[in-house]
Amino acid sequence: MRRLRLGMVGGGQGAFIGAVHRIAARLDDRWELVAGALSRDPERARASAAALHIAPDRAYAEFGAMARAEAARADGIDAVAIVTPNAAHHAAARAFLDAGIDVICDKPLTTTLDDARDLVRAVRDTGRIFVLTHNYTGYPMVRHARAMVAAGAIGAVRVVQVEYPQDWLSTAVEETGMKQAAWRTDPAQAGPAGSLGDLGTHAHNVAEFVTGLRVERVAADLHAFVPGRRLDDNAAVLLRFAGGARGMLWSSQVAPGNENALRLRVYGEAGGLEWSQEHPNQLRHAPLGEAPRILARGAGPLSAEATHATRIPAGHPEGYLEAFAQLYRDAAEQVIARIEGRAPDPAALLTPTVEDGLRGVAFVAACVESTRQDGAWTRIGA
Amino acid sequence: MRRLRLGMVGGGQGAFIGAVHRIAARLDDRWELVAGALSRDPERARASAAALHIAPDRAYAEFGAMARAEAARADGIDAVAIVTPNAAHHAAARAFLDAGIDVICDKPLTTTLDDARDLVRAVRDTGRIFVLTHNYTGYPMVRHARAMVAAGAIGAVRVVQVEYPQDWLSTAVEETGMKQAAWRTDPAQAGPAGSLGDLGTHAHNVAEFVTGLRVERVAADLHAFVPGRRLDDNAAVLLRFAGGARGMLWSSQVAPGNENALRLRVYGEAGGLEWSQEHPNQLRHAPLGEAPRILARGAGPLSAEATHATRIPAGHPEGYLEAFAQLYRDAAEQVIARIEGRAPDPAALLTPTVEDGLRGVAFVAACVESTRQDGAWTRIGA
Amino acid sequence: MRRLRLGMVGGGQGAFIGAVHRIAARLDDRWELVAGALSRDPERARASAAALHIAPDRAYAEFGAMARAEAARADGIDAVAIVTPNAAHHAAARAFLDAGIDVICDKPLTTTLDDARDLVRAVRDTGRIFVLTHNYTGYPMVRHARAMVAAGAIGAVRVVQVEYPQDWLSTAVEETGMKQAAWRTDPAQAGPAGSLGDLGTHAHNVAEFVTGLRVERVAADLHAFVPGRRLDDNAAVLLRFAGGARGMLWSSQVAPGNENALRLRVYGEAGGLEWSQEHPNQLRHAPLGEAPRILARGAGPLSAEATHATRIPAGHPEGYLEAFAQLYRDAAEQVIARIEGRAPDPAALLTPTVEDGLRGVAFVAACVESTRQDGAWTRIGA
Amino acid sequence: MRRLRLGMVGGGQGAFIGAVHRIAARLDDRWELVAGALSRDPERARASAAALHIAPDRAYAEFGAMARAEAARADGIDAVAIVTPNAAHHAAARAFLDAGIDVICDKPLTTTLDDARDLVRAVRDTGRIFVLTHNYTGYPMVRHARAMVAAGAIGAVRVVQVEYPQDWLSTAVEETGMKQAAWRTDPAQAGPAGSLGDLGTHAHNVAEFVTGLRVERVAADLHAFVPGRRLDDNAAVLLRFAGGARGMLWSSQVAPGNENALRLRVYGEAGGLEWSQEHPNQLRHAPLGEAPRILARGAGPLSAEATHATRIPAGHPEGYLEAFAQLYRDAAEQVIARIEGRAPDPAALLTPTVEDGLRGVAFVAACVESTRQDGAWTRIGA
Repeated sequence: MRRLRLGMVGGGQGAFIGAVHRIAARLDDRWELVAGALSRDPERARASAAALHIAPDRAYAEFGAMARAEAARADGIDAVAIVTPNAAHHAAARAFLDAGIDVICDKPLTTTLDDARDLVRAVRDTGRIFVLTHNYTGYPMVRHARAMVAAGAIGAVRVVQVEYPQDWLSTAVEETGMKQAAWRTDPAQAGPAGSLGDLGTHAHNVAEFVTGLRVERVAADLHAFVPGRRLDDNAAVLLRFAGGARGMLWSSQVAPGNENALRLRVYGEAGGLEWSQEHPNQLRHAPLGEAPRILARGAGPLSAEATHATRIPAGHPEGYLEAFAQLYRDAAEQVIARIEGRAPDPAALLTPTVEDGLRGVAFVAACVESTRQDGAWTRIGA
Repeated sequence: MRRLRLGMVGGGQGAFIGAVHRIAARLDDRWELVAGALSRDPERARASAAALHIAPDRAYAEFGAMARAEAARADGIDAVAIVTPNAAHHAAARAFLDAGIDVICDKPLTTTLDDARDLVRAVRDTGRIFVLTHNYTGYPMVRHARAMVAAGAIGAVRVVQVEYPQDWLSTAVEETGMKQAAWRTDPAQAGPAGSLGDLGTHAHNVAEFVTGLRVERVAADLHAFVPGRRLDDNAAVLLRFAGGARGMLWSSQVAPGNENALRLRVYGEAGGLEWSQEHPNQLRHAPLGEAPRILARGAGPLSAEATHATRIPAGHPEGYLEAFAQLYRDAAEQVIARIEGRAPDPAALLTPTVEDGLRGVAFVAACVESTRQDGAWTRIGA
Repeated sequence: MRRLRLGMVGGGQGAFIGAVHRIAARLDDRWELVAGALSRDPERARASAAALHIAPDRAYAEFGAMARAEAARADGIDAVAIVTPNAAHHAAARAFLDAGIDVICDKPLTTTLDDARDLVRAVRDTGRIFVLTHNYTGYPMVRHARAMVAAGAIGAVRVVQVEYPQDWLSTAVEETGMKQAAWRTDPAQAGPAGSLGDLGTHAHNVAEFVTGLRVERVAADLHAFVPGRRLDDNAAVLLRFAGGARGMLWSSQVAPGNENALRLRVYGEAGGLEWSQEHPNQLRHAPLGEAPRILARGAGPLSAEATHATRIPAGHPEGYLEAFAQLYRDAAEQVIARIEGRAPDPAALLTPTVEDGLRGVAFVAACVESTRQDGAWTRIGA
Repeated sequence: MRRLRLGMVGGGQGAFIGAVHRIAARLDDRWELVAGALSRDPERARASAAALHIAPDRAYAEFGAMARAEAARADGIDAVAIVTPNAAHHAAARAFLDAGIDVICDKPLTTTLDDARDLVRAVRDTGRIFVLTHNYTGYPMVRHARAMVAAGAIGAVRVVQVEYPQDWLSTAVEETGMKQAAWRTDPAQAGPAGSLGDLGTHAHNVAEFVTGLRVERVAADLHAFVPGRRLDDNAAVLLRFAGGARGMLWSSQVAPGNENALRLRVYGEAGGLEWSQEHPNQLRHAPLGEAPRILARGAGPLSAEATHATRIPAGHPEGYLEAFAQLYRDAAEQVIARIEGRAPDPAALLTPTVEDGLRGVAFVAACVESTRQDGAWTRIGA
């Protein structure tokens, strides 16, 4: 099976998530990075491309030029990865879709609802593949949890508890020149929400992914604790799901002792499931009235969905990069199937979609609006 | 130091919490059970008393008679423990206070705000000791957490996450004749809330106890998932504390895989604290920017408050009964000090008060009202 | 059911284990402490007795006099608890057995094999009850593990891993006047082994208790790391059990970060069991080829042996004192049954016996001998 | 920096460890797989090569031919990875060393002491790079533990506890045609030890790596529990280190509930360290007399050695593949430095050496001999 050709927008030297995308693309040997518009700073773009073995003529200064040039090449890229700050996602994604190129895009999808809706339309109109890297859905045990819920293992879902606390913005590090902090706390680059956009959208996505349910209404309390900060660094949200389930969502950047503590708990009529991102190879399953079991990636008969996303045996921990890589592996299958004009392996279709991205943007918008309305229950208007 | 004489109202054969109170009273050898109105059923009252080595003439059929008779005896009880279902707390407590007898009362204090306010007045008027058995405050590491917050170890508190899920009411066991379930789901006996009254009041209390802050406003979503249930079996509450801290509180009786999972997390400007009731001998302390430490009961230099509540060395786990016993040990010191006309040991003064009980009842009332107002932020009117 | 009358030898003011025995005796309300020879220092004996509400005429200066006097009283003690340093166990136990009084004795049984054998004979000759307080066998989940192994839940046992590390003797605290350390490191008071006698005997006992197997041969490496220390502070032992199982046992007092970390793991042909004393309410059961389950005290259908030893529901942690109290509760049943001339409740017969104590002393002797023989496999000569 | 050219011996379709090596080589983008003798079965070798994008003329039927041909090419491989069953390591490694090609070799080094000594000589004589993939040394927190011990953070080491249990050979799966089990239980392919060779050598290596100490003598009890099995499936070993530290090592393939549970605990005069492979991002550090700290990969100021081996921030778990990749990343630096005639980055020099491999083989030989001598203490004759 041939390696696919990947381009990248954003992710120049010093960026965090761009490097992650590149490792993820490489890990399963399905992608080769051959082109990039890695930085808006031309010198940095050139140097970054050289360090990544990208040929000089495919190191672009600007994504529009890149989309046009690559679409015109016989050996043009098969897909582009967009890893810029949030505010630049829409224009870049739009440019490549319009050029007929499949897109892998970091989350959140966009910073405005209008942009998100525009991308949904563009994907539908162009028929291109669109994979949104809500990477936590790439973990085998998250996929297994989804498969268990779908199979009725815990009965009808009643209660969802999801949280994603961090602590690195407990002080005003954005004022110290730290780039990662600066753009994430700047409404112009990050959009209308801080912790909720960066972390809460992951939490929202993984909750919907596992339960198969849609959040319908929210009552939110977004707040910035650090003086001078313009976006929330802590968000408390009550959830109501279509169908009657209820839940709570918490995201925070000011919770000392939490590194990247995404945690999901789902309780149904017949059992409960608990998963924690920092120990991702385990999934706790408590059938009502029986002793809880610790299910493990690679161990015993798990779902096809989990097995599909597993590389190495139980007890050999896979981590964040492998989960991220799973999205790239699945994206490769989708792209190749499209090129070959065949249906993709159904197991490769669990990647988050542009519609998931729209729902995430709408979730943020509804939480911002609810906070403005002093916590009133607000419908998500995707 | 002499053993004090204890009476008990409620707690006859088959009751859960009455037996716990008796072990707690006995554990540190400061109390002797000598009188009781253990059941409203006279036969059961008599048999229960006999099994507990209570002399027949001090086995009462009714608490009012007991209060009068014991107050009149030279060797009358020094204090009474009230361990009935919630709705009977007020009348019993009032009777003993009026008779000049100190009271140890199970929680929640009462089922109505008026009753709670009446007890606050009665305690003030009579000058009697009143200890409310929010037993989780008796754990050494909970007291240590409180001492750390008070000493500024985590800086100003910003975020409080507290939860108390169980799973034993996931189905309608109250319809199977199970006594513990029946009264807890009956508004006439339990008051206006189910999970929130039984569990949420503990969560509310331990959050206030540790932080030293008062919950001022709530936005609540109380809900009964089990068809036919008249009181909430799941409660999601957003919290605003006086002084600006914010939080979330969750109580549930329908979360499979949770036995008695009270858990408190407090995050301040300079650090975080996490404590879990099911592993109560540890307290996680994460100073901002440093590696988290696992503090342990009995290990190293802890606060005077923790040491006061510790019986045996680190690594020899103390549990629920020892925490409960701590309230009885502290109550004994308060009662003796009152009798002897001296100031009690300050370390023995951390027991929850009638005012704490009033705040708990007001918290429940505000959550019920907020739910009725579709989640509107509601001030707690203690 | 009447409360039994208990006497105590040792355990005066300042002693650790004496206070534990008293709480344990009191917790389930089956014993009343009425007599004692609490210290070899007469003044301390008197003061200790007074503090414990023991009548002055039953505060003895010496255990021999106590045995004779109590045996002669109509209201004499029903049993005696012996809680002195190890070297004094034999003489005291012998005196009470000879006086016809049942004995509850701390571990290890004696410091010499001859003394241990003598006690075995004395118990047989006198027909008295003898309970050795290997207290870890009182934990419900330890008893449940034993029941599971006996029921074949993990198949034939192959491998046993047991360890009991502490850290409090990492430096020469015995030279600082700390009483607990001084006697435990003094061969005249502690016997021929240090960490192995204090901790290893518990580990050996709990391994035999759970597996139902007998350690037959040992190859040992006892060593004192702290300069000047005369008894081992670290012991590594290879085990061979009758029937073919093999194992490893480690005890240590110089392992920083370990408080009281007794841990047992048993692996059979069909499954594994793991239990840790510091979190004693859980038992991990891994059926071969299936997901591990976390069994919990009080949760779900457990064995009769576990239920017998459980006071409060799952999620309300019981601890060290409750496990210790279980031995006193079971001892009470045995004593009363003997007095009443009936067979005791079989569930109350799991208390460690004088023969278990003899095997523990022989285990220590064999390990000492193996170390002397440079680690040669040595048969346990009980 | 150019990508290096990698060849591979073994690792054809269906192999486990070959695929791991390839991901590891790829992850940090320093290697490109361009040649291979992937199987002794020519058809399988060809098909495997094609699937891996290896050009047909560099898909060799046999490693000797490959070594000669690649050494002769201008664009020949920079290094070879040897991932065959153990018994084939020596001949292959020898062939490439003799051809002047750097070697990355799976563990254990060889199946005989003579072969191991021969490779040590060959590496010295040829001056080639030799990296032995004791992959657990690639974990950042293992490297941090080593750095802490070296810096004196826990004082002089006294006690080492290391274990590596699995459960997948609890039954005779080697008789079911399972290839991974078949060669590991076959003395002709695996060498003189089973669990000890496969797992115990890792445990031995990681213990020496972290402590910086050498195991000098062993007393061993190797045993096969599964009927008919010719190599040990459980090994219990007492350790004596040069300098006076002592320890215990356990490896097992018959411990149900253990997947890949390598665990190391090191106790010194001033503190303890504990690390578990299944949760590799944490390291527990207990300074004597202080609360234990949970150090985490990527969090706070860690050693240069840990930082060197870290790709992504704290809370984003890295796992087995990243640790393995670290050896490839470090090997690349060593190979390039040799080619460029400069000293390598010192941080890249922590990879296990051929001498480490020799010590591992000698450790196995000594354990086999000790078992033969009924557990006598046996000197390791490296």
